[in-house]
Amino acid sequence: MTIEHTATSPDAELFLRDFRSLSQIGETPGGGVDRQAATVADAQARAWFTALLGQYGFTVEVDAVGNVFGLLEWNPGAPYVLVGSHLDSQPLAGKFDGAYGVAAALHAGRRLAAGHAPAHRPKYNLAVVDWFNEEGSRFAPSMMGSSVFTGKMAAADALAIRDTDGVSVAEALAAIGHTGSGTGPVPAACAEIHIEQGRSLEDSDTTIGLVHSCWAAEKFTVTVHGEQAHTGSTVIADRRDALLGASRLVVLLRELADRYPAGALHTSVGQLTVLPNSPVVVPRRVDLTMDLRSADEDVLAEAKQLLEQGIKLIEDEVRVRIEVRGSHAWGVRPYPAAGVDLARDCADSLGLTSRPVYTLAGHDSINMNDVVPTVMLFVPSREGVSHNEGEFTGDSDLCAGVDVLTEVVRRLCEGALDG
Amino acid sequence: MTIEHTATSPDAELFLRDFRSLSQIGETPGGGVDRQAATVADAQARAWFTALLGQYGFTVEVDAVGNVFGLLEWNPGAPYVLVGSHLDSQPLAGKFDGAYGVAAALHAGRRLAAGHAPAHRPKYNLAVVDWFNEEGSRFAPSMMGSSVFTGKMAAADALAIRDTDGVSVAEALAAIGHTGSGTGPVPAACAEIHIEQGRSLEDSDTTIGLVHSCWAAEKFTVTVHGEQAHTGSTVIADRRDALLGASRLVVLLRELADRYPAGALHTSVGQLTVLPNSPVVVPRRVDLTMDLRSADEDVLAEAKQLLEQGIKLIEDEVRVRIEVRGSHAWGVRPYPAAGVDLARDCADSLGLTSRPVYTLAGHDSINMNDVVPTVMLFVPSREGVSHNEGEFTGDSDLCAGVDVLTEVVRRLCEGALDG
Repeated sequence: MTIEHTATSPDAELFLRDFRSLSQIGETPGGGVDRQAATVADAQARAWFTALLGQYGFTVEVDAVGNVFGLLEWNPGAPYVLVGSHLDSQPLAGKFDGAYGVAAALHAGRRLAAGHAPAHRPKYNLAVVDWFNEEGSRFAPSMMGSSVFTGKMAAADALAIRDTDGVSVAEALAAIGHTGSGTGPVPAACAEIHIEQGRSLEDSDTTIGLVHSCWAAEKFTVTVHGEQAHTGSTVIADRRDALLGASRLVVLLRELADRYPAGALHTSVGQLTVLPNSPVVVPRRVDLTMDLRSADEDVLAEAKQLLEQGIKLIEDEVRVRIEVRGSHAWGVRPYPAAGVDLARDCADSLGLTSRPVYTLAGHDSINMNDVVPTVMLFVPSREGVSHNEGEFTGDSDLCAGVDVLTEVVRRLCEGALDG
Repeated sequence: MTIEHTATSPDAELFLRDFRSLSQIGETPGGGVDRQAATVADAQARAWFTALLGQYGFTVEVDAVGNVFGLLEWNPGAPYVLVGSHLDSQPLAGKFDGAYGVAAALHAGRRLAAGHAPAHRPKYNLAVVDWFNEEGSRFAPSMMGSSVFTGKMAAADALAIRDTDGVSVAEALAAIGHTGSGTGPVPAACAEIHIEQGRSLEDSDTTIGLVHSCWAAEKFTVTVHGEQAHTGSTVIADRRDALLGASRLVVLLRELADRYPAGALHTSVGQLTVLPNSPVVVPRRVDLTMDLRSADEDVLAEAKQLLEQGIKLIEDEVRVRIEVRGSHAWGVRPYPAAGVDLARDCADSLGLTSRPVYTLAGHDSINMNDVVPTVMLFVPSREGVSHNEGEFTGDSDLCAGVDVLTEVVRRLCEGALDG
């Protein structure tokens, strides 16, 4: 997995220096970062990005929902190859998720800009991008910036979304001075590199993951409606305990995952809030989010059907009403095979091991893959740990990833995936 | 249950007028009140109380933890009969819980003060009291003011307790100008009237409940320690999902209650908070409160043992660590039989039906009953609904309760429970 060919090159040194300075922004005592979308820490990371874009010869453009583009125009009027990821993070997250992809894109762009012969004009121009609010922790749903850019969500709808303190995306972006007027570049192709957030590369001792498809995902927001009562004096038969209903639902979701072979279905509840949340009051209402994912859309459809049946049973047995609303979904969607082949060839040419992998997590590239040919690359994550301060990828893997990404983007700019 | 003998007397009219003005303080759109301890609404209710105490001839004294006493000294130097309840409420609560008991005590005191022959000096003086923070929703634990007054909790410990915004009891009391310097009266006996918060009086068509004993209660604070991870990409076998552990615990607690005959064991979780509470993060930590109650201490002990076993199983199966800390407990404790007989005799003398009942909920009188002879009375609650805006007791029951309480307190002041 670890090939020590890059860590001592000047390019690698420069990349690692910049990535380390980024990792200090919003740093947590546990060795991670906390940079939720449009917070002060995110604003600082964005300032880091725009400062280095300027230094490396890019023109900065910000669009209406806070996507930041660094533009390098070799060929006036031609569309752009977009390469990037996101600088925002989950609360108490790792340093690598998203941030690595932006830093790697920045350095791929830097090398292509610097190494470029003045006479040569690639077919496409180059844009390095920080997609706004990929994580969706402060403002749901996730992948917001790329959803607006690809026309899946109206900008006005995104800007109106509020966090739990009642602050809207529009207000939060204005507060950090990142309400842009640009529309962003016209895309021709896209590339993104990310840590795997799974174990398959580490377990197979492989350096580069060639993402050939994403898992399907369905996310729901759920409200369990019960009735407020006294925890001591209300007889059990009279209770309509919203938290009991919600807890049964959390357990049911895990039972659904356990019905299938390992790795066939992932389910979870990440967010749950209780009203009125007093020690001596039976809760009247619980709001929660459900997340179901599978590489097999049939499994997902069957799981949803079982879930519906289970919810009816919970409603009857706990005497609550459970309201389920779909919030965000994507299907199993292959990345172009030609892009996977191209990326494999780039890895081979650098003497790096590679293998096809799924992405289980959502990425901005999933949105971009719906509109232009897109290449998605992974580097290994130690023990698959992610959304956790303990997230880790070694320097040589990070640098190898930048090398492959640089070569992929170079070929995309030459029109390698056209036609 | 409804005897229409009081609703039109001048005493009843005056009581209902004052109770209605109290009900408007912190009133909610749903017809209840929201007056958590030492909030602005609680401060207003306390101002209502001290204003009327002055009007009805009482001297006001506030102690170090915000208990408010209205003192009527017939017999200088003699101890006091304390009669009262609490003006604070749960969030989105009913108008009757606690507030009725304070208003009833105020009017029992008013009648005894007004109807008193100048030459007669009862054995004991009279104190009408609003116990601070009985509910424990903003500042846990509940029954705080009476716990300090009866020496079960140090005043300094109570004053240092903080709400979820980090505000201490001392700061909250100072903010409403109710940090008192008094020590409160020396008690000789105690009486409290409250809505039943259960169905037994309504179901048996009885007006007055004679509380002969309380249920035992044990309350715990629990932390479930898991590990933060990605909801999509982390394989199920690698997860240490703190919310799944917590949900299994909520379900287990209800299963424990269901093992016993109806009414033998009440269990619940009222408060639960998730960290980091993001839609795409497997929770690393959940804090929750557990509440177990029974009229049978052996049932409670057995349930706790089963709970411990169940927690070990959850720890193993979910791969989390569950930390349980006892926070507040009381045993089954009978009220003096002589007090029950006295209250029955008072109800009989007024032509009102009565029957012995348990209290399942905690009350300040449970603390007072540990230090002086104490009488606890109930009036009916429609459908047993409580800690809910829909809480309801009819006017004639409210007025009948004030009549019985007045007579009980009159006799307590004459020393009826001495020796």
